[in-house]
Amino acid sequence: MAKRKVKIGLLGFGTVGSGIYKIITSMHDEIAQREDVDLSVGKVLVKALDEPNTSIAEDKSIFTTNFEDVLADEEITVIAECMGGEEPARTFILAALNVGRSVVTSNKEVFAKHWTKMEEAAHQNNAGLYFEATVAGGIPVIRTLTHSMQGNNIESIMGIINGTTNYILSAMSEEGREFDDVLKEAQAKGFAEFDPTADIEGFDAMYKISILASLAFHTRVPIERVYREGITKVTKQDISYAREFGCVIKLLAIAKMKDNRIEVRVHPTMVPIEHPLASVRGSFNAVFIHGQHVDDVMLYGRGAGSLPTASAMVSDILIACTAQEHRYPMLDANGDGITFEEDWESEFYVHMKVADKPGVLARIAGVFGKHQVSLASVIQKEQDSNDTAHLVFITHKSREKGFGAALREIESLPEVSGIIGCLRVEN
Amino acid sequence: MAKRKVKIGLLGFGTVGSGIYKIITSMHDEIAQREDVDLSVGKVLVKALDEPNTSIAEDKSIFTTNFEDVLADEEITVIAECMGGEEPARTFILAALNVGRSVVTSNKEVFAKHWTKMEEAAHQNNAGLYFEATVAGGIPVIRTLTHSMQGNNIESIMGIINGTTNYILSAMSEEGREFDDVLKEAQAKGFAEFDPTADIEGFDAMYKISILASLAFHTRVPIERVYREGITKVTKQDISYAREFGCVIKLLAIAKMKDNRIEVRVHPTMVPIEHPLASVRGSFNAVFIHGQHVDDVMLYGRGAGSLPTASAMVSDILIACTAQEHRYPMLDANGDGITFEEDWESEFYVHMKVADKPGVLARIAGVFGKHQVSLASVIQKEQDSNDTAHLVFITHKSREKGFGAALREIESLPEVSGIIGCLRVEN
Repeated sequence: MAKRKVKIGLLGFGTVGSGIYKIITSMHDEIAQREDVDLSVGKVLVKALDEPNTSIAEDKSIFTTNFEDVLADEEITVIAECMGGEEPARTFILAALNVGRSVVTSNKEVFAKHWTKMEEAAHQNNAGLYFEATVAGGIPVIRTLTHSMQGNNIESIMGIINGTTNYILSAMSEEGREFDDVLKEAQAKGFAEFDPTADIEGFDAMYKISILASLAFHTRVPIERVYREGITKVTKQDISYAREFGCVIKLLAIAKMKDNRIEVRVHPTMVPIEHPLASVRGSFNAVFIHGQHVDDVMLYGRGAGSLPTASAMVSDILIACTAQEHRYPMLDANGDGITFEEDWESEFYVHMKVADKPGVLARIAGVFGKHQVSLASVIQKEQDSNDTAHLVFITHKSREKGFGAALREIESLPEVSGIIGCLRVEN
Repeated sequence: MAKRKVKIGLLGFGTVGSGIYKIITSMHDEIAQREDVDLSVGKVLVKALDEPNTSIAEDKSIFTTNFEDVLADEEITVIAECMGGEEPARTFILAALNVGRSVVTSNKEVFAKHWTKMEEAAHQNNAGLYFEATVAGGIPVIRTLTHSMQGNNIESIMGIINGTTNYILSAMSEEGREFDDVLKEAQAKGFAEFDPTADIEGFDAMYKISILASLAFHTRVPIERVYREGITKVTKQDISYAREFGCVIKLLAIAKMKDNRIEVRVHPTMVPIEHPLASVRGSFNAVFIHGQHVDDVMLYGRGAGSLPTASAMVSDILIACTAQEHRYPMLDANGDGITFEEDWESEFYVHMKVADKPGVLARIAGVFGKHQVSLASVIQKEQDSNDTAHLVFITHKSREKGFGAALREIESLPEVSGIIGCLRVEN
């Protein structure tokens, strides 16, 4: 039987792009046998013809520094974009779709920001648009939502979807170290970027949960709707208190939908040690999904890295080139009647330093009560000196706004010298 | 846009069949909106027209006790089989495929035994054959292997894919109880069958790993090639010794491929508590897959139950009725040069009762050494009386046959009064 001959164009030949090249060339025969596709790399857009990774390819004529060369190659039917960043990736993806090429991308930033426009261009030109690798690398979370959960309304997603922050929090927890110290080591080892802002401030997780929530809830969840808080303020003291409450601290990306109201947020979160997400350590990722009928499902694996991410993109490439009908999930979505919840409910952990005097606890508890925040437990900790004490509270489920108002009022009390740590808690 | 109208036939209206009916009717409008399919249940084969679940359907005219009525309905394009058992399920599935109906099944026994024949019938009649629900209920492990790991040679699969045995082992471990005691309680609560053989003796897991291994290794792995050992001999004593070695005991289904040699086995296994599979408790299932490029992936969720299993079948139904080209994985497989390994390697745990005399340990260690089994650790336990002692060994990686020969020789030593427990260990 004649194999379907497919040439792909690669945009970018860094970690992920070179990984795709390696998989496609080393598994050529297996893929031909199993998938009935004779797959090869036709053209690769690089920044410079002599950039280091180009050495892995025998045929140097595939490399070009001009995007138009990739677009002009009529044999190329699928273009895999793995350059990262907003521009020129966005321009190139739209240009490829506009001439009817299918696009496979790992670019969460471009996708989270420009999904609708890209999907429209794909639809108008009957081109495919595949993005499994935008979220959680080699973990098949996109395909699980689109192809294995159609018989469900998705009620919640909680994900550890940024490897750098999970590596840092795991090291802080397991080695009792402070954030700055672990971050510096992670940068030295290459586990964190020279400019780590996108990871540690939660932007990367924000892009990803925007994509997951849009798919799960069948409506566009733009990044502006995602509450975002990074991990820079988490201390080893917080981690140690969390442990006393039977919890670990993780940067969770959370999306929930109830009664047509959606809440989406990224923040450091206390999670009970029995929760399956609590044991996801180091740079591993995991996504915990609750579907109305399927109940709990968790997917765990490598959220980044050359070959895991390339593995996801090769699957997308094979689906893109064998699909006879491409799907456009956002065009089929129907967000009518859906609103975004900003005053969501969660439990809170808060650690404060107070004057060690009679009546202080009662006064603070009174402020919480006034704002409808009820307390689940209180620990009073060793004093710093004769006249200060540390109070650690866990609340019952409370509204975000009421808790915030209570905290501002407590902070202004003369007996309170400072709010030292504050985290949300999910079960 | 006109929706694609699809009627399905259901074979069986027990736990799973009625779950499919509930999802399709309660989510009719969402499925139409999101998947562009106007899905309904046309006919349902039941054993008796008044069986209890029929009360959930308003239109009783869909029920029939005659399979030919389902087959004769020209509007039905997809038939979902969820009767369980080998016959008449096998006959009905083949009959449906032979008249060009696509079949979706949750029947692991039929599928593991008759896959090739069913796939041939499907192919000849251009019909689809979908089986996500045969393994691990609502967990999308089949689709992950076929649609998210094409860029990998799969190196190993380790799964907790039988909920009943995991429930029993979890309760034994967490409550310090013996097997018989927990089994009786599980039967009373409906978590174990009146005849629990298929679960506790590992037949159910054997069917499932045969299916997973066939897909993962692109060659037919018949059930006859699966080594099978149940959990009936596991004692609370074994669980307590396992804990001393930092392990829990799980019924694992294991499939590995190396150098074109495949090993497939189901047996109670000691697993280190840090392993992601160790924290899978109660009736939950999980499958841990190692792919050459994607590295470790674990999928976790409900392995059984009405709605989780039905959720998987509804996904299959939607894929079956929208696919323009059906895939036949076994017909595309190429098992040339593949052999089955029977003398595989693993570590072993063994607990024996011996005479408490000088030289006994040395003699036993000598027998192990003679058979190329090297010991990783030994614990000597409290004596039952003045003249007996308990020895617990963990070996390094050893061959199955050498270990077996050593054990038989040790058992025949006059100083050894019995081998009390023996388990394989996986890391």
